[in-house]
Amino acid sequence: MDENKTFFGVSRRALLSAFAALPALPVLFPVSASADIAGDPLPSWNDTASKKAIVAFVERVTKQGSPDLVPEAERIATFDNDGTLWAEQPMYFQLAFALDRVRALAPLHPEWKDKEPFASLLEGDLKGARAGGEGAIFQIVTATHAGMTTVEFEKIVHDWITTAKHPQTGKLYSEMIYQPMLEVLAYLRGNGFQTFIVSGGGIDFMRVFAERVYGIPPEQVVGSSGKLDFEMRDGKPILMKLPELSFNDDKGGKPVQIQMHIGRRPIASFGNSDGDQAMLEWTTSGSGPRFGLLVHHTDAAREWAYDRKSAVGQLNTALDAASKWGWTVVDMKDDWQKIFPFGSK
Amino acid sequence: MDENKTFFGVSRRALLSAFAALPALPVLFPVSASADIAGDPLPSWNDTASKKAIVAFVERVTKQGSPDLVPEAERIATFDNDGTLWAEQPMYFQLAFALDRVRALAPLHPEWKDKEPFASLLEGDLKGARAGGEGAIFQIVTATHAGMTTVEFEKIVHDWITTAKHPQTGKLYSEMIYQPMLEVLAYLRGNGFQTFIVSGGGIDFMRVFAERVYGIPPEQVVGSSGKLDFEMRDGKPILMKLPELSFNDDKGGKPVQIQMHIGRRPIASFGNSDGDQAMLEWTTSGSGPRFGLLVHHTDAAREWAYDRKSAVGQLNTALDAASKWGWTVVDMKDDWQKIFPFGSK
Repeated sequence: MDENKTFFGVSRRALLSAFAALPALPVLFPVSASADIAGDPLPSWNDTASKKAIVAFVERVTKQGSPDLVPEAERIATFDNDGTLWAEQPMYFQLAFALDRVRALAPLHPEWKDKEPFASLLEGDLKGARAGGEGAIFQIVTATHAGMTTVEFEKIVHDWITTAKHPQTGKLYSEMIYQPMLEVLAYLRGNGFQTFIVSGGGIDFMRVFAERVYGIPPEQVVGSSGKLDFEMRDGKPILMKLPELSFNDDKGGKPVQIQMHIGRRPIASFGNSDGDQAMLEWTTSGSGPRFGLLVHHTDAAREWAYDRKSAVGQLNTALDAASKWGWTVVDMKDDWQKIFPFGSK
Repeated sequence: MDENKTFFGVSRRALLSAFAALPALPVLFPVSASADIAGDPLPSWNDTASKKAIVAFVERVTKQGSPDLVPEAERIATFDNDGTLWAEQPMYFQLAFALDRVRALAPLHPEWKDKEPFASLLEGDLKGARAGGEGAIFQIVTATHAGMTTVEFEKIVHDWITTAKHPQTGKLYSEMIYQPMLEVLAYLRGNGFQTFIVSGGGIDFMRVFAERVYGIPPEQVVGSSGKLDFEMRDGKPILMKLPELSFNDDKGGKPVQIQMHIGRRPIASFGNSDGDQAMLEWTTSGSGPRFGLLVHHTDAAREWAYDRKSAVGQLNTALDAASKWGWTVVDMKDDWQKIFPFGSK
């Protein structure tokens, strides 16, 4: 497996480097994530070029009499999740989930005391854990995401997402969603769009909270997946999660999964990293009006600032491609009046 | 590959035996397939137990004040396609497409003259073609379903489905859809259901006509699929169809694909063969009100009569399972007042 290959959208480099930051334990906050769409549909956006580009596109494809009117059925918009709808620093949130699960499961696995990468991980020796390379990552993913039914996994994720806190903000991970993007989702849906998530994150991980947090139902969530097996247990059917990758929904895999799940080319796509470049290319190379947007993380004070050299959410080749394809690049610092529903970091 | 393995939902046995019946060339008819839902929502159903069971279920889960009211978001219904929404005799219609394609492509492949299974096939020697077993089938499928872009394939299917005729009725294949099932689709959608196809047929094959013929948009069509590759051609992105099976959406694969694509367990499922048994089991073993229905092909005069020993659409173990699980079994001869929109065979 080379440096660019990923598990559940987490690159090996990102995964290993993220070992450096394990979450602490802060206070509980309730989630409040609805967009204020009275009057101005995008109140958390400053009145800059990015906001104007979004509004101009939506009006162009939805206004009766517009020569570029797009039928409702074809108003498909796709959104990356990590770094586009919610934050992804200091590590992908699903990775924080996996590490929490290793710690929670350790008492049931006394053999982990002598077995890498678990032994090092549980002692806080991240360098030792990463010595196992891709094999180590595969073991962490399968130990925490397989060997249980889909229903059992949903409950585990639900329990985690409603209690685990981000190490720096002390907020629930599901509170660390971008208020301006919630407004875009609501604005598009209010204009007859279907809004899909197309993310490198795990499909069954995201579905647990996507409807409550983003208003996106399970059937509009597309992501990476492990294989499933249909089995009978005590005369009742179950779906077992197998320790085998089914699909990696990243880079060129995103247009492939869009084709498989949606079967139509989106007319608008939103991302923030090189992993989204192929999706934006696929979307904006179609005929008729098209819209591509990249969230550029430029605000170290209120959120995080990172791009070309980041191990998490690297934005390098896609940033170069933006002008060629005519994509809108959001400067988070200048374009967003507000970051999270609760404010900022 | 054993006898039960399938390609695009077509079992080896069915595929080989279907070689015996190649389509002839009849006249063109326009398609008219909308269900009459004024007053009685199911006018093509006789007033028998099957119709009553459908109506009772829909009222139970949708009537305000019903203790079993199901929220709209959870009103998911899944339908098999071959033998459930359209006919499948004397061979799966997608197989007729594949054989037509072999004949159409033959002039571009002079080497087929000396290459099995094509040589035998083109000479009408079906016994010779089947001598190659599963390898032969794989070659027929890949020669006709891969090596082109998704857009190119859609055009080929569109041209075929709007012109090719059924050998016995002389109707377009897309006219050989069941009027009673069109009414069920419309009735469910009128009651807040989402209606998905979950078929062993090829996902990109069905999507070409499912919206026009059944009112089911591409994102609600689930099926078998080949692998895709995202590539750049002359600076523009394309999706190439590769000669490799990605997913076989049959038997236990149906609940798996339901989980992958929809992410919710359906509350109602409709099928007609053993390939649908796992889907109906998965659906009807959930908690709360559930509905499973099997179309039993019992009408040799107006359609076809086949079940336990049929090479196409075998209905054997699922028929035995129906009473255990409480599924409704439609007796096509007694329950359906009308078969196709144009009448019957």
